[in-house]
Amino acid sequence: MENADITVQIVLEGFKSNLKKATKLLNELSDKDLLQEIVIFKNTGHYVFGHLNAVHDNMISLLGLGESLYPELAEVFIKNPDKADLQKPSIVQLRIQWDEINLALVEKLESLTTAQWFAKHTAVSDEDFAKEPQRNRLSVVISRGNHLAYHVGQLVLLKN
Amino acid sequence: MENADITVQIVLEGFKSNLKKATKLLNELSDKDLLQEIVIFKNTGHYVFGHLNAVHDNMISLLGLGESLYPELAEVFIKNPDKADLQKPSIVQLRIQWDEINLALVEKLESLTTAQWFAKHTAVSDEDFAKEPQRNRLSVVISRGNHLAYHVGQLVLLKN
Repeated sequence: MENADITVQIVLEGFKSNLKKATKLLNELSDKDLLQEIVIFKNTGHYVFGHLNAVHDNMISLLGLGESLYPELAEVFIKNPDKADLQKPSIVQLRIQWDEINLALVEKLESLTTAQWFAKHTAVSDEDFAKEPQRNRLSVVISRGNHLAYHVGQLVLLKN
Repeated sequence: MENADITVQIVLEGFKSNLKKATKLLNELSDKDLLQEIVIFKNTGHYVFGHLNAVHDNMISLLGLGESLYPELAEVFIKNPDKADLQKPSIVQLRIQWDEINLALVEKLESLTTAQWFAKHTAVSDEDFAKEPQRNRLSVVISRGNHLAYHVGQLVLLKN
């Protein structure tokens, strides 16, 4: 196996394993758990969960894999903070969307060739990519894996 | 640039950027902040900080880059939980060790060739590596980057 193929396998399997742990935790947390603030005066589990949905949904378009499924999530969960108190989709709804978004995302990632993993994502111009070939799909997935781990480290604190 | 070289650059720069954010946050947190439990009845910042020191120190030997600097940290911060209440090095001491450990670690990582990044780490046998070539140094650094992000997501909650 070529080093580039090995890399893709590491990154894809790593991301899937992050997702699996996150989903397991989210399934263990009740809706009531998620409604709590993780730390007093800080974000609720509800907001963090919605934020993860919005960011993963956005990966689909950012990576040039198709249209995001729920682009409206960005307004509530990325562009505004929890305390802006905009109306949020319910946790029940977020649970359904989470599975849907990540199923679509992983399916699309799994269909990429190694060359496509090393190709640029949509937020970088051809000119910039020529200078910075590390701004590829691979690096986005690694960095979103980190982002997921960061918030899972917070959600786990809601467990009793 | 070859795809394998691009990969190494993404992973190394990504890890260094994670470290930089973590260190910035740790410098913003006072010793008093770090002594608090992140969430009532859960780990203190002191323990999480020590845990990160122990895990990064262990990376040096795990990756075959030399001897760990403070192998004794593992007993207090990996093998035992916070509530075991073993005597911990002070936060002042941990701050010094954190810089020392990560300086050594990054210096050693920076000196690796691309081929060495794709070589096996010390916890895998030649036989297993032949079957699973993804158990290389690269994958350890990606996964430790995730681990760091997970705990930084918790430490950030100690900020007022």
